[in-house]
Amino acid sequence: MNPFTFHAMSYGVYIVSTWDHGRPTGCTANCAAQITANPATVMVSINKENFTNRCIFDCGHFAISVLAENSDPSVIGTFGFRSGKDFNKFDSVPYQVRDTLPIVSDSCAYIACRVIDTMDSPTHTVFLGEVIGAEKLSDNPPMTYAYYHSVIKGKTAKNAPTYLEEKTEPAPEAKERYVCSVCGYEYNGNIPFEQLPEDWKCPVCGQPKKVFRKK
Amino acid sequence: MNPFTFHAMSYGVYIVSTWDHGRPTGCTANCAAQITANPATVMVSINKENFTNRCIFDCGHFAISVLAENSDPSVIGTFGFRSGKDFNKFDSVPYQVRDTLPIVSDSCAYIACRVIDTMDSPTHTVFLGEVIGAEKLSDNPPMTYAYYHSVIKGKTAKNAPTYLEEKTEPAPEAKERYVCSVCGYEYNGNIPFEQLPEDWKCPVCGQPKKVFRKK
Repeated sequence: MNPFTFHAMSYGVYIVSTWDHGRPTGCTANCAAQITANPATVMVSINKENFTNRCIFDCGHFAISVLAENSDPSVIGTFGFRSGKDFNKFDSVPYQVRDTLPIVSDSCAYIACRVIDTMDSPTHTVFLGEVIGAEKLSDNPPMTYAYYHSVIKGKTAKNAPTYLEEKTEPAPEAKERYVCSVCGYEYNGNIPFEQLPEDWKCPVCGQPKKVFRKK
Repeated sequence: MNPFTFHAMSYGVYIVSTWDHGRPTGCTANCAAQITANPATVMVSINKENFTNRCIFDCGHFAISVLAENSDPSVIGTFGFRSGKDFNKFDSVPYQVRDTLPIVSDSCAYIACRVIDTMDSPTHTVFLGEVIGAEKLSDNPPMTYAYYHSVIKGKTAKNAPTYLEEKTEPAPEAKERYVCSVCGYEYNGNIPFEQLPEDWKCPVCGQPKKVFRKK
C-alpha cells in the first residue's frame, strides 16, 4: 500500500464549529461530505482526541464553514494546530451566529446540522448531521485541500484523517529551510527569512517569526 | 436553506466497484473520504437504489478508482446513468483486478477496501472500509467534482447525494440547446449540433447523437 495514494482524493477546507457550554469552539477539517440530498444530510469526521469531538457530542449540533481561496489562511492554523480546550479560537477569528451555531464570517458558505447518528472508527468519530440551515456567504471559489497544499503550502494536522508522518514525505532539498514549529508551514518566499520584518507572522497559523526553526 | 450551498463542498470523481457474483460492476460516486489515517479507513456513500449498494453488502469489499482530469469522461456516464443490474458496465471500460477487486484502468489511483461498518441514512448507505490496498496509477491530476461540472459540463445523477432537481437550476438562455436524454449533458461545442458527424457520441455517457433532444 502506498499511503500517498490518499492524496489523490479531493476535499475542501472547512472549519467545523460548535458550542462548549456557551463558548464557541471548533477545529479545521477536510473530510466532510454530503450524504443524502432529500432530506439533506452531511457528515464530518473528527478525531476523538480533538476537543471539538466531545463538544459536538455534548451540544448535539455542529456547523461547517466552507473556507474560500481568499479566506485568511491563518484561520486554518488557528483552528487546526491548537486545542480549543484551553484556548478561545474565536477570540481572533470574527464569527456570527447562524441557525443557533457559531460560523466563521470569512467563509463562502456555511451548513448548520443537528447530529442524527454517529459511526465509530479507531481514531475518529463520523458525525451524521441533518441540515437545519445552509447559506452561501459569497461567490468566492471554495478552497480545495489541493489548493491549500499547493498554493498556500499548508501542512496537515496530526489529528487529520489524511495525516502522513513527516518522515514519509520526499527528502528535503539541500538549502536552508525555516519551518514553523507550531503548524509545520515551511517558508518559501523570495525574501531571505532573516530579512523578514520582526512583526511578520506565519501565514498559516499566525504565530510570530520567532517560533520558526531552521531545519 | 439554499440547496445550492452544497455546491461549495469539494469532492473528487470516483468509480466505486465491486463484484456481483463474479461479474464486475460499480457506479459513479463523488462522496468518498478518508476517515482515519492509521489504520487507514475510507468511506463512500451509495444510494440504496443503486445496484452497487446491494453488491457491496453481498461482496463485503469495494474499490475506489480515482478518475483523473484526462480520464475518458464517458466512464462517468457509463457508471453514473445506467444500472449495473441488467448492463455490464465493464464491457466497455477496460479494467484490471487489484487486491482482488476490479478497478478502472483509466484512473490515476485506486483504493481497495474491506467493509468494516455501515451507517444507514434515509436514502444512502455509508460504507466504512478498511484499506487493504492502495496505489497510484499515474501522476495525472485527480478530477475534482468542480472540474467535472465546469470543464466537462457534466451533470449529476439522480441517485447522487448532491443531486438537485433540474427545475431549481438557473433559467436557460434563449438559444437552441441539445441535451442528452440519457445523462443530461448539454452540448455546447462550436460546431452546430446538426453538423456533428453521425457517429459522434455524448462525451459524458457515450450514447449516440440520436438520443439528444432539442430543448
